[in-house]
Amino acid sequence: MKELGGEQVVGRHAVRELLAARRRRVRDVWMADTVNDEEISLLASASGVPVRHVSRARLDAEARTDAPQGVLAHAQPLPEVELASLCGRPRPFLLVVDGVTDPHNLGALLRTAEVGGATGAVLPRHRAAHVTPTVTKAAAGAIEYLAIAVVPGIPSALSELRANGVWTIGLDPHGESAVHELDLATEPVALVVGAEGEGLSRLAKARCDVLAAVPQYGRLASLNVSAAAAVAVFEIARRRAL
Amino acid sequence: MKELGGEQVVGRHAVRELLAARRRRVRDVWMADTVNDEEISLLASASGVPVRHVSRARLDAEARTDAPQGVLAHAQPLPEVELASLCGRPRPFLLVVDGVTDPHNLGALLRTAEVGGATGAVLPRHRAAHVTPTVTKAAAGAIEYLAIAVVPGIPSALSELRANGVWTIGLDPHGESAVHELDLATEPVALVVGAEGEGLSRLAKARCDVLAAVPQYGRLASLNVSAAAAVAVFEIARRRAL
Repeated sequence: MKELGGEQVVGRHAVRELLAARRRRVRDVWMADTVNDEEISLLASASGVPVRHVSRARLDAEARTDAPQGVLAHAQPLPEVELASLCGRPRPFLLVVDGVTDPHNLGALLRTAEVGGATGAVLPRHRAAHVTPTVTKAAAGAIEYLAIAVVPGIPSALSELRANGVWTIGLDPHGESAVHELDLATEPVALVVGAEGEGLSRLAKARCDVLAAVPQYGRLASLNVSAAAAVAVFEIARRRAL
Repeated sequence: MKELGGEQVVGRHAVRELLAARRRRVRDVWMADTVNDEEISLLASASGVPVRHVSRARLDAEARTDAPQGVLAHAQPLPEVELASLCGRPRPFLLVVDGVTDPHNLGALLRTAEVGGATGAVLPRHRAAHVTPTVTKAAAGAIEYLAIAVVPGIPSALSELRANGVWTIGLDPHGESAVHELDLATEPVALVVGAEGEGLSRLAKARCDVLAAVPQYGRLASLNVSAAAAVAVFEIARRRAL
């Protein structure tokens, strides 16, 4: 049985997109009695989803995240897709996440990928955050639109991507290319990002077709993973849109 | 008396840069007895800064942040600079932060600005997070290198920037230009970013010379402020480096 999660969706953006996307069944929406989000109420009612009004304390206890914004929902787990099917879609542009354990970072990465036009994301089954309530909140609805594959290991997934004609670009501060010079951005591509601190694992790095860096102009050694990924995703997106 | 803060610095990156930069006096470093960071110990000893080894519980209680990574330091408050002096430096490239209240986001923005080669940052005295311990941790040392001005209000600061020959670029999802088409990026510029959710205030928007957007390619309406700022900062940085 595969585990992707996402059954509990937290935060206004996230619940709004869950209801608007209509891609999975929603059991109920909980709203704190201090909150009145008319758009969410209308969307829920249009889909026949019951809205429960509860105390702020009750909602916060159920949410298990920081600042749940007074809204959460319970839904079917996220559908999971096969890696091969991600490769088979038109013009694949994938985000591969290698060992990011911080749920805020994982959520932020998925949101950035979706807004940047990525066609899917690849997460490792182990050594990574799964789609917890905190991830759903930080992703702000991206999980409703991004196709997500969960794989047993990132290095073997990279080999499979390559075998399927998808170029793999590892984001690495010591990469030989700058992200702004990636001519292959218009090909089928997967951007591979690593954990906070350590970056990409040695094996993942070795399997990438190219390692690319965000150029640095200051005194600090590095960007955080979400910021570096945002720069790379939108540079790839810009080239693909030309 | 101006209040910028930054006296308590939390996290490994942040404490390492505090000691390496040698820009302000450091009273002491606290290290949890479960942690052995040799680089920090050497840097502290080279500057004659005492290192106190304390229990993890004692350190966590002092830190007042999530996951302090077993290291914190106490230092002189951050020096504050005048807005006019930020404008007077060679090739000003400033980040103006309008009403960002989340300390993680503020810290991430400062880190991105520093790595992107910004020459300074402008923060409003009210309606914003100040340099709390959580900001120091997320900024990962950026506050040691970035010159920071605190202003009574952002709209009047934007007028002052303009009067000093600095172009102001507001980051706004409905902006008329794309951040990738900003020809004035090579001039003296200030990038102005707004709060999570609401974005730039109406008055701040009206005072900007140009409003620029990060192009969006997905279904979601918006990026988070740190991701959008990262894309804009590195696009400006790339043009300035040409």
